[in-house]
Amino acid sequence: MTEDDQPLDEEAIIKILWGTLGNSETKRDPFDDDATWVKNQRGKQFLVEKADMFVATTDAPPQMTPAQMGRKSIVACVSDLAAKGVSPKYCLVSVGLPKKLATQDFVTSLASGFNMAESEYGLKIIGGDTNATSVDPVIDCSIFGFASSLVLRKGARPGDLVGVSGKFGAQPAGLLILLHKAKSSDKEFEKNAVASVLEPRARLDIGLRASRFFSSCIDSSDGLAISLYHLAESSKVNFDLDRLPMNSGVDQFASENSLLSRELVLFGGEEYELVCTFSKRHERALSKLGVETIGVVGKKNADAKAEVLFNNELVARRGWLHFKS
Amino acid sequence: MTEDDQPLDEEAIIKILWGTLGNSETKRDPFDDDATWVKNQRGKQFLVEKADMFVATTDAPPQMTPAQMGRKSIVACVSDLAAKGVSPKYCLVSVGLPKKLATQDFVTSLASGFNMAESEYGLKIIGGDTNATSVDPVIDCSIFGFASSLVLRKGARPGDLVGVSGKFGAQPAGLLILLHKAKSSDKEFEKNAVASVLEPRARLDIGLRASRFFSSCIDSSDGLAISLYHLAESSKVNFDLDRLPMNSGVDQFASENSLLSRELVLFGGEEYELVCTFSKRHERALSKLGVETIGVVGKKNADAKAEVLFNNELVARRGWLHFKS
Repeated sequence: MTEDDQPLDEEAIIKILWGTLGNSETKRDPFDDDATWVKNQRGKQFLVEKADMFVATTDAPPQMTPAQMGRKSIVACVSDLAAKGVSPKYCLVSVGLPKKLATQDFVTSLASGFNMAESEYGLKIIGGDTNATSVDPVIDCSIFGFASSLVLRKGARPGDLVGVSGKFGAQPAGLLILLHKAKSSDKEFEKNAVASVLEPRARLDIGLRASRFFSSCIDSSDGLAISLYHLAESSKVNFDLDRLPMNSGVDQFASENSLLSRELVLFGGEEYELVCTFSKRHERALSKLGVETIGVVGKKNADAKAEVLFNNELVARRGWLHFKS
Repeated sequence: MTEDDQPLDEEAIIKILWGTLGNSETKRDPFDDDATWVKNQRGKQFLVEKADMFVATTDAPPQMTPAQMGRKSIVACVSDLAAKGVSPKYCLVSVGLPKKLATQDFVTSLASGFNMAESEYGLKIIGGDTNATSVDPVIDCSIFGFASSLVLRKGARPGDLVGVSGKFGAQPAGLLILLHKAKSSDKEFEKNAVASVLEPRARLDIGLRASRFFSSCIDSSDGLAISLYHLAESSKVNFDLDRLPMNSGVDQFASENSLLSRELVLFGGEEYELVCTFSKRHERALSKLGVETIGVVGKKNADAKAEVLFNNELVARRGWLHFKS
């Protein structure tokens, strides 16, 4: 096996794609933000788009129903637009199913999930495609919205505060419960943790109301730590965190399963919370909208090797890894 | 196995999806034309979109290179916009790969195919997504363009002529050569037939120049016969064909492989030719642009049970089927 035959991770694949596709007319790396956008002819309005591919064999625990798959595939896209402060308006859905799943029951359930997402987030599915796969159920959503401005990953300034739209830790706990039979004596926590995996919700409300205060924003679909790194790197700054936003019950779950709660908070993923920065003068307004401050933006970092520190200790730059129990 | 467990075909899946998703604000079935569209706020310009999911395990013969896959996945989308007379401008690509294909070589080749399609059709890939599949390589493209008007499948009028932008028959012959070792003593035909499968081209040039003359149009990605039926059904008319547009060499290939050339012409697919109708007064102008007349639009058919006749004989309403040799 030569070096060229080694499996690449997602970042490496994106690097090759973008390297080959060259500079677009927009001079942006098309994969360097949660969503992509083009200006209209008058340069006054943005058409903002996001594509997200959901692969049930790799993305869904076996307990997930087709309705939950359909809904979640759209929620993931909505979350990206929410982080840009953009309201999703239209959606295309491409569905690839293996023959054994192309049944009345499965497709009806899948469609009801799409329908739920349409109602919850006020968007319309206006088209799509279907195809046959050999094994993998695949749902690719392309979502569109319009905006006169948007919040980028780039823009955090030294002195800004770092905030999040909610708590972390329950989602990876839910995955461990679903995939590895982890347990908690707090049954309410177990239930909520599982729901956070099977029926996540996007923070569209907060994104639309709060984004005008943000200097940068990303959604936490890859995990809190990596999301903080993406913001810090794009903005060439460091982040100093003094607290971790933890769901209640995570500490107990972690100790009952020989895990570190801090790891569950930092290295989960698909919580679909907003991770953002903002000027101190907006802290009170944002707190009322549900944005909790967890740290400050530190000094400029010209070489883009951003550091994210928690209590002066370097946070690992990584996303979800399987936890050993 | 109950009835609900029976595998559904693509039309049945679409029917369920659309039935559940209900009436959109546009009051259109989102899957009933080659592309979908929304009007801008002033109602003066259309944003036209098309999503197409390419699954290598089911759509690609084993001889197809990753570059050809990448290119073809975009060509299929471009063809749909070409049939609406709309210039594709931007594209999102979502790529799902199994681990064994997520290599430097494969991804670099795939990206070069995307790049070729960008250059050939003057569009820009502005974003996308990547994911891991367990088995199926999947490429989903969402393409969009802007237009002040577009040609629909609906619109053919009795007395109009029926036309095509090119010849048929080589594509299914190419598939039989690639998949079933069919042969022709005409080596030039073999080469062209194989190229039509591995390196198809979309008729964007003709679509952009000729669409203002069309009363209806569709691309032939599902085969000539089914495409004619889609136009006839959408417009509630019959079609009377007096000739079949056949690639040279198809007759010989058919007889050498115990096939019917007529079947190769009517029941292929993915030729990416335009199938259209137009007023007689535009016949000469369209002929110069490369559109060949193959028949006339017959009487109105109020019940939408459209008939497509060739020399007064009913053409089967079906797409590609494997031919027995």
